[in-house]
Amino acid sequence: MQRITINGERLWADLLELGRIGGLPNGGVTRPALSAVDQQARLWLIDKMTEAGLEVRVDGIMNVIGTLQSGHPERKKIALGSHLDTVPEGGRFDGAYGVIAALECARSLRESGFSLPCDLEVISFCDEEAAHNAGTVGSRAMMGQLKGGELCKAKNEGAEPFIQHLLKLGQDPEQIASARRDPAELAAFLELHIEQGRRLESEQLHIGVVTAIVGVYRYIVTVSGEAAHAGTTPMALRKDALVEAAPVFTLLPQWVAEQNPEMVGTIGQVTVAPGASNVVPAQCRFLVELRSQQPEDMQRVRDRLLAYAAERQGWNIETIYEKDSVRLAPELIEQIAAAADQEQLSATLMPSGAGHDAQSLAPFVPTGMIFIPCRNGVSHNPAEEITPAAATEGCQVLLTSLLRIAAAQTEG
Amino acid sequence: MQRITINGERLWADLLELGRIGGLPNGGVTRPALSAVDQQARLWLIDKMTEAGLEVRVDGIMNVIGTLQSGHPERKKIALGSHLDTVPEGGRFDGAYGVIAALECARSLRESGFSLPCDLEVISFCDEEAAHNAGTVGSRAMMGQLKGGELCKAKNEGAEPFIQHLLKLGQDPEQIASARRDPAELAAFLELHIEQGRRLESEQLHIGVVTAIVGVYRYIVTVSGEAAHAGTTPMALRKDALVEAAPVFTLLPQWVAEQNPEMVGTIGQVTVAPGASNVVPAQCRFLVELRSQQPEDMQRVRDRLLAYAAERQGWNIETIYEKDSVRLAPELIEQIAAAADQEQLSATLMPSGAGHDAQSLAPFVPTGMIFIPCRNGVSHNPAEEITPAAATEGCQVLLTSLLRIAAAQTEG
Repeated sequence: MQRITINGERLWADLLELGRIGGLPNGGVTRPALSAVDQQARLWLIDKMTEAGLEVRVDGIMNVIGTLQSGHPERKKIALGSHLDTVPEGGRFDGAYGVIAALECARSLRESGFSLPCDLEVISFCDEEAAHNAGTVGSRAMMGQLKGGELCKAKNEGAEPFIQHLLKLGQDPEQIASARRDPAELAAFLELHIEQGRRLESEQLHIGVVTAIVGVYRYIVTVSGEAAHAGTTPMALRKDALVEAAPVFTLLPQWVAEQNPEMVGTIGQVTVAPGASNVVPAQCRFLVELRSQQPEDMQRVRDRLLAYAAERQGWNIETIYEKDSVRLAPELIEQIAAAADQEQLSATLMPSGAGHDAQSLAPFVPTGMIFIPCRNGVSHNPAEEITPAAATEGCQVLLTSLLRIAAAQTEG
Repeated sequence: MQRITINGERLWADLLELGRIGGLPNGGVTRPALSAVDQQARLWLIDKMTEAGLEVRVDGIMNVIGTLQSGHPERKKIALGSHLDTVPEGGRFDGAYGVIAALECARSLRESGFSLPCDLEVISFCDEEAAHNAGTVGSRAMMGQLKGGELCKAKNEGAEPFIQHLLKLGQDPEQIASARRDPAELAAFLELHIEQGRRLESEQLHIGVVTAIVGVYRYIVTVSGEAAHAGTTPMALRKDALVEAAPVFTLLPQWVAEQNPEMVGTIGQVTVAPGASNVVPAQCRFLVELRSQQPEDMQRVRDRLLAYAAERQGWNIETIYEKDSVRLAPELIEQIAAAADQEQLSATLMPSGAGHDAQSLAPFVPTGMIFIPCRNGVSHNPAEEITPAAATEGCQVLLTSLLRIAAAQTEG
């Protein structure tokens, strides 16, 4: 089987260049989906794809899809990709690495003169990071898995909903449905990503072959009290929404800790309204996120939260989504492991504790994921870091996996 | 002694007109200091003052001062006033009532043809409500009581400091010091205000004669943790700033409840950063406000908070200010009570549980305050409400008090 080498220097240079779009003085990146800098990153990517000879289109949900054509559009395609958006004050590699590495695979392939038997797609999915509190938007839209009205409601406190941001970018929300594709068009989807955990680094391994992706449940909890003058309203007469909500900030980690040790639960966003030093809080709104490989863990903690709220006045809990964990395709797990072996890189099978666009595709398309180590396991933080060597190795495994999968497909 | 009647219909019409500047569909008002609508209200007031024949000036901190001249500028002046700014989603009467009523007194006086023996000032103080977390800014500036650098630091999370907002309005921060006046210029200051509590209403009284104003201590507490991926960071390895901070949200009301029953303590503003559903909070910042007539109450709760923080990692507490309670001038208390009696309105002596601009002036200038009832004691809330009759009665007591004080001054 043909071996093609990727260009690690070009890959790294692109990562640094992209990191400056929405880049912060501390080395981090703030590039929330559909923001001006996210759109700048999208245009930058389109230029890079066009230079690389890909056919580029932007679909109805602002996913960018670049195709390296094979002359056989009727055959099932193979897709590689991830996302360019970041959390606020996130890092340069989460998502971006998977997109640029996918682009690098397409560039190296084209330069090698080798012809894939089928079209290769490089996909950058829109809004993986839940900038509007609904994550993996682009990949779910592509699989037709958005809930009706979800993007009209989906928003962060004080911000406009997803749909408004889409309008501002000149995109017609009526076109969102057109982003849906027949999963049968795709033979396989591969996502390369930083681990965002410490396992590969601590075990000094090059490659993680992902076997399953954690489930994620997300809720918006709204606790209503009564606004009152903070100077003249006696303590006993107050309906202080923050005081009412606060015990859950402490209880949630306890409830989570009583489940399987791999389970996590986070309250990452809290808003107190009206938000003045001299007004008793009328409302406290917060986001609860639960993650586990075990749906039962998440259901138990959710049910405790619901029971706690049901016993009280003024509590409302809205489900954003409940996504159970998914297993990745065994044949792709096998090919990725074989590719790492072929590249003489150490590898391990492992689950992903983070959610990814791959999760949206996995129920419909044979899907695989590849991890590389990141420094101290730190991610969603400006201190997120990988080495150029690890970046090159991961990208090489991605390309070798792709070639193996394409070859297996032709044989099959 | 001359009796002059105020025009209650004109007063009420002005209150409704002003309430539309920054007005909300629910009847409330959002008019934070130095915002565009606050500036609009300032210009509206200047027009009204000019129409009323007052000499108007805006001082270096954006206080508006309208003078009804007596031909005796060398004599000590009497000042009436309050503030036009509101909390977010506040009401139409807190502050605004005191300013418009002061204007109405000046108008009625001028129309009556009666000459006061001294100049009368109508003052609208800038930023009473702590839009930038430093309250009673204008009145403290006038008394030379701002701390050095206070307005450069003073800001709400995510917003610009006071000084930046001042610059945007075309005001030179170097001029702030020029707002300072010699307190000896003023013979008396009177502030008319809604009670913001339930006492007058529940006892069916017309007028509260304020004897003292509550002390206010304010702190910014910052708890630092470590941002991390909410999916991949095990519970045991987290440094979650919200989980660390949350117990204080519950403890503070308990600490306060252990002091004198009139003491209150509020956490009205909380910010969690970076504030994404999928990032473990790196920082939790919140405002603690304590109020009491007894400095010892506030000191004890402050010391418990400081001790709690000192035992922990990553806690920082910054003092915004510590203002102890002040007593108002006995001779003005007497004149206001007599004025209420003269107007055949029921009155009671009472302390103020809310802070006011009067508090800034009281240590330096003989100062009095008059309260009228507000519905259900509700304030800092869109539901804040007073009756036109109560508005007229309070304004009439203000004018009669003014005439009594002026007469006593001439005698004295």
